[in-house]
Amino acid sequence: MKTLSPFNLVIFGGDGDLSFRKLIPALYHAYVEGNLPNGSKIFLTCFSEETFKGFDERLTQSLNKLFQSTQHSEEKLIGFKQLLNPVELDITQNNEAWLNMMSRLKPEQPRLYYLAISPSLIEVTCSHLEAHGGFQGEARIIVEKPIGYDQKTASDINDTLAQYLDESSIYRIDHYLGKETVQNLMALRFSNVIFEHLWDNKTIDHVQITIAETVGLENRASFYDTAGALRDMVQNHLLQLLCLVAMESPAKLNARNIRSEKIKVLEALRPISEAEIDKLSVRGQYVAGQHDGDLVPGYLEELGMADSQTETFVALKAYVDNWRWANVPFYLRTGKRLHEKAATIVIHFKAVSHNVHEQSVGGIQPNQLVIRLQPKESIELTLMTKDLAQSGMQLNPLSLDLNLSDTYKGLSNDAYRRLILDAAAGDPTLFIHRDEVDAAWQWVDPIISAWQQQKVQPELYRAGSSGPSAAQALMQNDGRAWFEETVL
Amino acid sequence: MKTLSPFNLVIFGGDGDLSFRKLIPALYHAYVEGNLPNGSKIFLTCFSEETFKGFDERLTQSLNKLFQSTQHSEEKLIGFKQLLNPVELDITQNNEAWLNMMSRLKPEQPRLYYLAISPSLIEVTCSHLEAHGGFQGEARIIVEKPIGYDQKTASDINDTLAQYLDESSIYRIDHYLGKETVQNLMALRFSNVIFEHLWDNKTIDHVQITIAETVGLENRASFYDTAGALRDMVQNHLLQLLCLVAMESPAKLNARNIRSEKIKVLEALRPISEAEIDKLSVRGQYVAGQHDGDLVPGYLEELGMADSQTETFVALKAYVDNWRWANVPFYLRTGKRLHEKAATIVIHFKAVSHNVHEQSVGGIQPNQLVIRLQPKESIELTLMTKDLAQSGMQLNPLSLDLNLSDTYKGLSNDAYRRLILDAAAGDPTLFIHRDEVDAAWQWVDPIISAWQQQKVQPELYRAGSSGPSAAQALMQNDGRAWFEETVL
Repeated sequence: MKTLSPFNLVIFGGDGDLSFRKLIPALYHAYVEGNLPNGSKIFLTCFSEETFKGFDERLTQSLNKLFQSTQHSEEKLIGFKQLLNPVELDITQNNEAWLNMMSRLKPEQPRLYYLAISPSLIEVTCSHLEAHGGFQGEARIIVEKPIGYDQKTASDINDTLAQYLDESSIYRIDHYLGKETVQNLMALRFSNVIFEHLWDNKTIDHVQITIAETVGLENRASFYDTAGALRDMVQNHLLQLLCLVAMESPAKLNARNIRSEKIKVLEALRPISEAEIDKLSVRGQYVAGQHDGDLVPGYLEELGMADSQTETFVALKAYVDNWRWANVPFYLRTGKRLHEKAATIVIHFKAVSHNVHEQSVGGIQPNQLVIRLQPKESIELTLMTKDLAQSGMQLNPLSLDLNLSDTYKGLSNDAYRRLILDAAAGDPTLFIHRDEVDAAWQWVDPIISAWQQQKVQPELYRAGSSGPSAAQALMQNDGRAWFEETVL
Repeated sequence: MKTLSPFNLVIFGGDGDLSFRKLIPALYHAYVEGNLPNGSKIFLTCFSEETFKGFDERLTQSLNKLFQSTQHSEEKLIGFKQLLNPVELDITQNNEAWLNMMSRLKPEQPRLYYLAISPSLIEVTCSHLEAHGGFQGEARIIVEKPIGYDQKTASDINDTLAQYLDESSIYRIDHYLGKETVQNLMALRFSNVIFEHLWDNKTIDHVQITIAETVGLENRASFYDTAGALRDMVQNHLLQLLCLVAMESPAKLNARNIRSEKIKVLEALRPISEAEIDKLSVRGQYVAGQHDGDLVPGYLEELGMADSQTETFVALKAYVDNWRWANVPFYLRTGKRLHEKAATIVIHFKAVSHNVHEQSVGGIQPNQLVIRLQPKESIELTLMTKDLAQSGMQLNPLSLDLNLSDTYKGLSNDAYRRLILDAAAGDPTLFIHRDEVDAAWQWVDPIISAWQQQKVQPELYRAGSSGPSAAQALMQNDGRAWFEETVL
């Protein structure tokens, strides 16, 4: 880890779900590992007296539940709590509470404002921050998805932010980019001539990117129903992963160069037209089914509404129209209430051009590079090798672990920790530029509009299944199949 | 293993060094594993009454020493001995002993004649075999190196053999080709599109093939001094390994197709001219030094002669002049009394074309595929990966085991066992055609003649060193280095 100066972090929405599930644990993680610089301060805004008063108890419960490792202890928890400053604050009211909190920040230290709040509160938060001089000196904003509902509303949010801070100080977070395995993908691509030479349409048959969830709506019903899987997951996470797979090598691995390569990919995405919408996209919505053997309700029941056309599942067949990727489909897929939780990128290489091993009983499986981001991180390369136990030439598939799981055993990689510390250090490499947000919406908007024009209804799928059958057909029609960890 | 019919095997030179060190253990190995078909018979010719009488005791001692595994037992040894038939026979005398032995062979079974004898005895052996009808029906000859002293004498031996048997029944053995790892190299090359696409001068920087011995002359002084390392090792073993690395994919993995591809490689070897002999070749001869910490004598002392210009070490820089390998040097090296025993093929890939990981402290090491044939068999691929314990982009080399050492633990791969059983099954894939022998000499002869014309003296090197300094210079002048398991 690089040595980091002490910083001030204000989490707006400090009493919220994201804060308790991800941000505070990430900070605690950094603290336990000795990576939170002494003298740093963390402020957590609590919307109500109730959440403010209950903060400490909720924190203790939450961390005790999450951390059962040997690193965790009563003593460490006490030390960590000394860095935390819960603040009762209604963001919308520029009152004494604001003044109090802002006066406790150290203007000579970098200040990070983490906007873990509804987009509708961004403007008022920024204006109050500005009124209290919060943007003077070294100040950064970290902003979470959703950034907009479409290109126009995203642009509005980015314009709002731009009124207060330069783009270089705005850190749009996508926690998938903070995963060590995603970094390792870049390391593999750009530091091994053997991968560099394989990374194109001459060797790669197709790419699959899947983010599958087993959960349903959780607490996000009202938001989710206005968004759907395409906006909620594809526009950001899946397209970001696609960019990292597909981008040309940047001249240097810095933020500006990487972003520029990512934008080139987004701009090269072939638009999905109304005429092709049925062929290239699948919408789905789950109905009652099972999860871990229990009956779980369908989307409508969870929503408590008699009707909704929102998709909880989407599959797309995309093309990156450039020299490198001509004719290589990128299959994207994400959904809720699927049979397994998985975030996986599969680079599926072509079959050998000619089979000289005809006598090998099992045939020759094409090589695959499988990059797993969830539930566990790993990178696996599958090869065919000789079955050494047989005297004739019989082949066996062999899986190689490129992520050194053994070497790094016990190392828990926390993407949020990584990204918060990067933001504190002023390193924007793994964050998203507004131009990327814009380019991603530019590809996504017409898909939504085509669905609307063509009145594409979501195909129903059972909770606990692998999604609507049309998603299987999307692959099967091309003579391919989705990569599944467990086959139903 | 394929099911094999019972066969008769006669080892001429059954009381010799090769027989006791390699052939009998290989057969015992096959027996213990249940791969010697019931009803098979093995005859071992013993030159003198003395070796004949001492055979049983020597056999027991030798196998007890070699096999200490759980598979070995008194009972198994007794069972194996029942298959063995030592025969007192002076090959040169076509007498009662010959008649006796031949009458015990079963003409309805395949008969294998293993010529573990001096080349000067080949003709007389064959003529006596013929006289006793030994070549009728399904009969094969297995013949060991040396096959000739140059192209002319090799051709004479092959002509002699051809008088008695069709080329398809002549099995020239090179035990390196029987190694499972060499087979696996073929499997990797031809069943993985990712290797197929990397296997040329666009991605590969150079290839190294080393066979290093720690032993000195052993019992071969008089033969060796007339041959030298180039004839003894390069003409056969090293060039065969070079062929397997460099050959185009055969249309099918059968003997005819593989041989034809190997011959193309041998014929594409760029001749080493007198003018370039100093630049492209190094001769060496060891002087007294150490082995395992003990003082060992030099070559002349072992030979007991005041002078010899025979090389006990040779290094060559070779080129395969075809489209695939243009400008890719193949560095070959072999020698006696070196510091480590190793038979290794290294495919050294090019450096990445541009380093985007400038901030990574250790730099980027080029990828390597290291194929080890001795002392242990393995295939290792080295990659650069992200150091997952570091938050910044620091790279670490990662070694991948492509030979599944863990999976095949405890499997002892015996090349001679494999090759003898292949010969018994009539599968010539891993044996050498006379055209290959011829093509190899065609490249080797001019090197010897250039040495003679240019009076190239062997450079002296200490026993226990890594060879003459000129061999290091051969690499260093090209900005490269030999791959060594242990650096002196």
